[in-house]
Amino acid sequence: MTVNAILKAKGDDVFVLGPDESVEAAAALLTTRRIGALLVMGPEGQILGILSERDIVRGIAEQGAAVLARPVRVLMTGEVLRCARGDTVADIMTLMTTRRIRHLPVVEEGRLVGLVSIGDVVKTHVAEKEMEAETLRRYITAG
Amino acid sequence: MTVNAILKAKGDDVFVLGPDESVEAAAALLTTRRIGALLVMGPEGQILGILSERDIVRGIAEQGAAVLARPVRVLMTGEVLRCARGDTVADIMTLMTTRRIRHLPVVEEGRLVGLVSIGDVVKTHVAEKEMEAETLRRYITAG
Repeated sequence: MTVNAILKAKGDDVFVLGPDESVEAAAALLTTRRIGALLVMGPEGQILGILSERDIVRGIAEQGAAVLARPVRVLMTGEVLRCARGDTVADIMTLMTTRRIRHLPVVEEGRLVGLVSIGDVVKTHVAEKEMEAETLRRYITAG
Repeated sequence: MTVNAILKAKGDDVFVLGPDESVEAAAALLTTRRIGALLVMGPEGQILGILSERDIVRGIAEQGAAVLARPVRVLMTGEVLRCARGDTVADIMTLMTTRRIRHLPVVEEGRLVGLVSIGDVVKTHVAEKEMEAETLRRYITAG
């Protein structure tokens, strides 16, 4: 199973903010979209960073309420790990575990084509196991 | 594989706050412990709720910076799903997926004995797959 299967199931929506938008605006976008992270992109569509719920909570812990008015670039993680459509779910599970991250942008020929979360990975895994079980049940019933 | 295997690997630490402690104190505890959720407990050790990074971000989006001085009970999720040591990892993966949650307290005879995150689940799953592969490699080498 690959990243492409996850994108087919969840769609290719990625929510994006510019680096100078506020942390408060980021919190609003995460909440209305019910997502855990968004990408920070420059004017030419280049990925500048990723901002997660964890980054916002850390910002509050370290800088207090004043952080909410600051631009997202002060809290974002600038080093953004990526994956490709063809990567296996096993590969990205390992990457997420070893690097302790919960979101991976999917990049194809330098272009952002999706964002995969650890929740998406588990959901796809569960769906695959259920499909296997269903196939087995049909096989047994037919036999 | 069961929840117990996860607890053996990660330990039984659960971080707890009282319901009247501030959201800002919760953000500090989540950050220093590098965790995604903590439990809100009453004076007799009863679970009153669970507070995650997502709850804090939603609070900021809906109430602004003023929420940071409010007590955690205003943001916590009061309905707390639980699991038991003997539950399988497959069971809790399904529960986390269908309910869209990322943390499950482990309860034994009414007593809190651990907290399992979706990250822990994936980590344990990856470790199990690596062990299977290693067993297979040894089998092939021996054969």
